[in-house]
Amino acid sequence: MGFNEVRKDYLLNRWVVIATERGKRPTDFAKQQRQQTKQAATCPMEPGNEHMTPPAVLVYLKTAKGIKKTADKDNQRRKDWLIRCVPNLYPAFTPPQEKIAQTQIMKTKDLACAVGHHEVLVESPNHDEHPADARTEQLEHVIKAYIDRLRELSTKPYVKYISIFRNHGLEAGASLSHAHSQIIATPFIPRIVREEIDASKQLHARTKKCAFCNIISKEMKGPRRILDNEAFAAFAPYASVNPLEFWIAPKKHQTSLLDMTKQETKTFTITLKTCLKALKDIANDPPYNYGFHMTPGKTAKNHYHWHLEVYPQLTIWAGFEKSTGMYINTVTPESAAQSLREKTLSA
Amino acid sequence: MGFNEVRKDYLLNRWVVIATERGKRPTDFAKQQRQQTKQAATCPMEPGNEHMTPPAVLVYLKTAKGIKKTADKDNQRRKDWLIRCVPNLYPAFTPPQEKIAQTQIMKTKDLACAVGHHEVLVESPNHDEHPADARTEQLEHVIKAYIDRLRELSTKPYVKYISIFRNHGLEAGASLSHAHSQIIATPFIPRIVREEIDASKQLHARTKKCAFCNIISKEMKGPRRILDNEAFAAFAPYASVNPLEFWIAPKKHQTSLLDMTKQETKTFTITLKTCLKALKDIANDPPYNYGFHMTPGKTAKNHYHWHLEVYPQLTIWAGFEKSTGMYINTVTPESAAQSLREKTLSA
Repeated sequence: MGFNEVRKDYLLNRWVVIATERGKRPTDFAKQQRQQTKQAATCPMEPGNEHMTPPAVLVYLKTAKGIKKTADKDNQRRKDWLIRCVPNLYPAFTPPQEKIAQTQIMKTKDLACAVGHHEVLVESPNHDEHPADARTEQLEHVIKAYIDRLRELSTKPYVKYISIFRNHGLEAGASLSHAHSQIIATPFIPRIVREEIDASKQLHARTKKCAFCNIISKEMKGPRRILDNEAFAAFAPYASVNPLEFWIAPKKHQTSLLDMTKQETKTFTITLKTCLKALKDIANDPPYNYGFHMTPGKTAKNHYHWHLEVYPQLTIWAGFEKSTGMYINTVTPESAAQSLREKTLSA
Repeated sequence: MGFNEVRKDYLLNRWVVIATERGKRPTDFAKQQRQQTKQAATCPMEPGNEHMTPPAVLVYLKTAKGIKKTADKDNQRRKDWLIRCVPNLYPAFTPPQEKIAQTQIMKTKDLACAVGHHEVLVESPNHDEHPADARTEQLEHVIKAYIDRLRELSTKPYVKYISIFRNHGLEAGASLSHAHSQIIATPFIPRIVREEIDASKQLHARTKKCAFCNIISKEMKGPRRILDNEAFAAFAPYASVNPLEFWIAPKKHQTSLLDMTKQETKTFTITLKTCLKALKDIANDPPYNYGFHMTPGKTAKNHYHWHLEVYPQLTIWAGFEKSTGMYINTVTPESAAQSLREKTLSA
């Protein structure tokens, strides 16, 4: 009997057992029963319920001249929005009332203030317009709104990182079922991104190349490729920790969403939608999380490469994973990629 | 408005936002609806169904002279066991058929063989004899069986770490509801334990003291103390990542379960049972995971201190946690400790 493989992530010191003995085929997950997110009697994200949320920090409105982007007081509770971004009613991170120095944020070596921002981005006036099925133009508004908030928040002196993420389905932590993403701005770079930045910096010093540029070009030639087009590559990462996990990265070297051209934004929208639709079709609309990894500043320009990581929530991280930081994945990334690839081709 | 606190773990570079704005009281979790683990028509862990599992590697039998511990061929499928430890039918890690060198285990810098062991420890012939409600003498057998397997597995030359853990309830990953724990022996020290060992080593070099001995003595004087007795301390850790999380550690400096005396084993059993019963009573038998952190070898003797970490599964780690490695906890460790303390006192 051969051994299972234990694989290390491209950059992180994170190991995963690819446990094929207990292996599942990607389509096996379609049979799983899904818990539905309970819908509150009144959805606070529905048009007409703008009074139930804090005033918007960004609204997209449709006008005769095209999309108007606004945060004006008069428009913060408009009912005819296309995109609406509001502060989270229960924020984990909150903005300072006045100027605050980095030394005030770090109180001691093991205690800091949760200074920052925590926002909810309502992706559509339509309750169920989730990315896999969204109209492309609407999903493009979502990506553009990510970029707008990223640009705005990264000018704040106390913000060191901006995490843009999405929880889909109750089992992936979406407590409300209306299509939405979240944005959290933190006063320091979080652990996983820090580790990626440090590792890619070391590799760059040694090879004079971006580690991720190499990874992408290799993966596009191998069995973990899902799809690629003129601007983006989608693939199942070598050491996927989740069944059917996939990443999307720009082929050009870019450090954040702010580097995208208009055309690339459109292409990214289509790439994202295509992959999420394939995932939905294979595994019966599974719960998932996605999160962007990027560097907001200029310090990592040469060696850090932004990408989106999509984690389907198909297994439970239990005692072993939580207490050791090692993972067990029952689906090989190669078979995940094959399923996703076939599904995107037949779409 | 004050800011939420962001706290760093004692040793790990792991940060958690204690988000009291969205705060819950520990008792709020009692109202959560629990998913039941679906019981297979025939439970493979039930006495009489020994043919459904691989032959046992350890069996406890009751004899006139006391407990007999055996792995004899004749006893591997006995039906009158008190404790039964068997290889996992779908192992993540598997033992080598012949001698294997460490260099064969590591194939490349990012690929290793999953050489090791993966066992299931059936904790009782009684389906529902979970630790919170177990007879103390039965739970003591469980702890002793952990120690027996730890001793045996740590003699294998290819084993570098042994993770002993327990998943309780479907939402915490227990796919079978019969009371059981799992043991995974790995060919290297996993990331989280490695990081704890390295950090405690550095602290020891600076202070000449065990970091954990300090932590325990401080926590026993403060608001995060749950209980302590002659041998053990239970507390909610300063930077708990889970609501109602608690840890149990020996007061004496010990690096693994193998260091416990017989009397300490008994005291540990009672301490564990008391704390898990308090958790059960507060939060309506919540799903949880626990895992031991220890060093099997002699290298970290001076600076590493074993402990048990118990993670109630009361919230979902979603896009933010998974993509950044930062956590949000909606219950302060201080209020968690207060609830658990009061419940253990009233027991």
